Amino acid sequence: MSDITSANIKFPWKISSRAELMNPSVIRELLKLTERPGVISFAGGLPSPDTFPTAIFKEACNKVLLDQPHEALQYSASEGYQPLREMIADYLPWNVDSSQVLITNGSQQGLDLVSKVLIDKNSKILVESPTYLGALMAFIPMQPKFESMLCNNEGFDLEDLKNKALDARFMYLVPNFQNPTGNTLTETIRQNLCQLSVDIGLPIIEDNPYGDLWFDQPPPPTLTNRNPEGCIYLGSFSKVLSPGLRLGYMVVPKSIFPKMLQAKQAADLHSSSFSQRVIYEVIRNGFLDTHIPNIRALYKSQRDVMLNALANNFPKAGSHEDEVSWNVPSGGMFLWMRLPKKMRAVDLLPRAMASGVAFVPGESFFTEYADQRSIRLSFVSVSADKIREGIKNLASVITAERN
Amino acid sequence: MSDITSANIKFPWKISSRAELMNPSVIRELLKLTERPGVISFAGGLPSPDTFPTAIFKEACNKVLLDQPHEALQYSASEGYQPLREMIADYLPWNVDSSQVLITNGSQQGLDLVSKVLIDKNSKILVESPTYLGALMAFIPMQPKFESMLCNNEGFDLEDLKNKALDARFMYLVPNFQNPTGNTLTETIRQNLCQLSVDIGLPIIEDNPYGDLWFDQPPPPTLTNRNPEGCIYLGSFSKVLSPGLRLGYMVVPKSIFPKMLQAKQAADLHSSSFSQRVIYEVIRNGFLDTHIPNIRALYKSQRDVMLNALANNFPKAGSHEDEVSWNVPSGGMFLWMRLPKKMRAVDLLPRAMASGVAFVPGESFFTEYADQRSIRLSFVSVSADKIREGIKNLASVITAERN
Repeated sequence: MSDITSANIKFPWKISSRAELMNPSVIRELLKLTERPGVISFAGGLPSPDTFPTAIFKEACNKVLLDQPHEALQYSASEGYQPLREMIADYLPWNVDSSQVLITNGSQQGLDLVSKVLIDKNSKILVESPTYLGALMAFIPMQPKFESMLCNNEGFDLEDLKNKALDARFMYLVPNFQNPTGNTLTETIRQNLCQLSVDIGLPIIEDNPYGDLWFDQPPPPTLTNRNPEGCIYLGSFSKVLSPGLRLGYMVVPKSIFPKMLQAKQAADLHSSSFSQRVIYEVIRNGFLDTHIPNIRALYKSQRDVMLNALANNFPKAGSHEDEVSWNVPSGGMFLWMRLPKKMRAVDLLPRAMASGVAFVPGESFFTEYADQRSIRLSFVSVSADKIREGIKNLASVITAERN
Repeated sequence: MSDITSANIKFPWKISSRAELMNPSVIRELLKLTERPGVISFAGGLPSPDTFPTAIFKEACNKVLLDQPHEALQYSASEGYQPLREMIADYLPWNVDSSQVLITNGSQQGLDLVSKVLIDKNSKILVESPTYLGALMAFIPMQPKFESMLCNNEGFDLEDLKNKALDARFMYLVPNFQNPTGNTLTETIRQNLCQLSVDIGLPIIEDNPYGDLWFDQPPPPTLTNRNPEGCIYLGSFSKVLSPGLRLGYMVVPKSIFPKMLQAKQAADLHSSSFSQRVIYEVIRNGFLDTHIPNIRALYKSQRDVMLNALANNFPKAGSHEDEVSWNVPSGGMFLWMRLPKKMRAVDLLPRAMASGVAFVPGESFFTEYADQRSIRLSFVSVSADKIREGIKNLASVITAERN
């Protein structure tokens, strides 16, 4: 009998129409390019590894494997480790019952579960413009239609939003120090959005990985805080402890918790029993109360270095449309910059790379009406000296482009 | 302004038609009942915690956090930790390139990715009868139609299968020491299935979490070994190291690897950087070569205790339809038993529980033509004494039922 297989015959795999819509993450592909040695990269979305509390992690691993080795290495409940669920419920500043907390593999898995449980083909989903790319990546395979929430001078254009919201399945937003813009929703906008949500029964998916990373004062209370029955809240340990462990959580209204739980079971049975116990050990004695202020201080000083470098290198910034402009994020990891009129970020990138500096063109983050002049700059994982050098290089490239 | 929220108003969440099809895992719900204190439970599907190598895990955690703390706690590639991918490719006994290996959160996540990437609404999926419930849980939300692969005296009924296979999207099976039956596909069946797969271009999803747990001799080579272009192979560290870490892997033909990778990115970005490095440290120096034989020896002795207890308590077993019968699994964790004619496992369960013994009624594992007399018994996580006591109790209940 001859060999059954043959490398020459291409096997006729047929993929789903859902999978046809999947694409490689533009950002991840870009990062492969921008993370060349010698390039100062403002393109990454990674927290600074200087903030990872290695010593206390090591202690926690040893303690968990000493005290409860069998439980930590065995299958466990899909809902998550009960003491961790209770600690999260206590930590959040509104009335959360631990039975509403579902432990996930980072908030990305929360987005995937939301996508499975709430999106039908052609469901209308309202998103910010620009919005978080990981959310689009999670939602797209379930074939929704996206509509952007347009802005006017007071934030979202409420009339436009009301019209769009009537037949929408939900609204997705990152209220604090958003990825990509670094912007934060004002108190007035939050009130308006919540009122709209309650008036017309529009669910809100509130994704808040950066909320703890404020620089001068906490952001206004979350939307979920105001409207817990109408919101799913996504939280994460990625930005305050470690992204590599992939642990986050959802707070889900009781009426739809069972479906989220069933989706979680089907997805991977449960999140790591071991990692959940390690995280619990790390934070149970108030570690975050001392740790998070250190991250805030570090990221604030890095933001200030970047703002100063920008001001020094672009003395006429913001004065008219032929100049660059940028926002002043009050927390988080990102700053949003706009190039001079007629300049396009994707065209600038290769030249910036050639002079040793990288960024992410902002247009990738839009579902429609892409702003081709926009650029996302991360200020957290590059040293102060390199931030100064990188912004100087970026300014040279922009100046050369303009002449 | 009055409070926006009110506990009295039920917020109008609308779930997807996909989510309507989700159900709580019958087994997980059942386990909550059967794991009462004082009940000898053959119902669980958990590996014995006596097989968890705690000491070497602790060493590995410390080493990883000493040598590469930043990498272990940082975001990492969606494909998985490259040295681990290479080790898996080397470990498998056919020609696997590490670029085909995708690290997943246990093989359950592999099933979820398969479901997303390969199943459209109404896609026909061929499954064994009975089949693994976790696979059904992963597949059902994508709304396929299941067809059972019927058996005759030589294994699958090939004529029946050929007819059904022509327009099927894929065939799913657990070839070795299957969950729930403990059965293993013969060499002849494997040859026939592979030939059919190649002849008509039918992809096979081969789920092999138990393959290493053979008792006397290894099972025949896997289907993927014979037909790598036409198979996706799912492997797991859950049964040979620890299920609680949630780490497994897929081996995917190169033509569809990019789509699986994109689905993994969207699902949770990547599996734990830390856990992947810990597992790599644990097994890099051949640990499994000494560890797996210990698990085999333990599980074989437990199986033998159960087989002896069954023979002692059911002296007339298998002689006719009024007697119980069971198979002799040659590896894995499960034994499949059939009750006497006219007896139904779900009816027997409450009476068994009342006399202190639990099992899983087999009918939950069928998509059609459920065998109501069947019972799944796990022999791995109950001590020898308790196995004897539990089987004795079960025999009493069955005898009482018959009289």
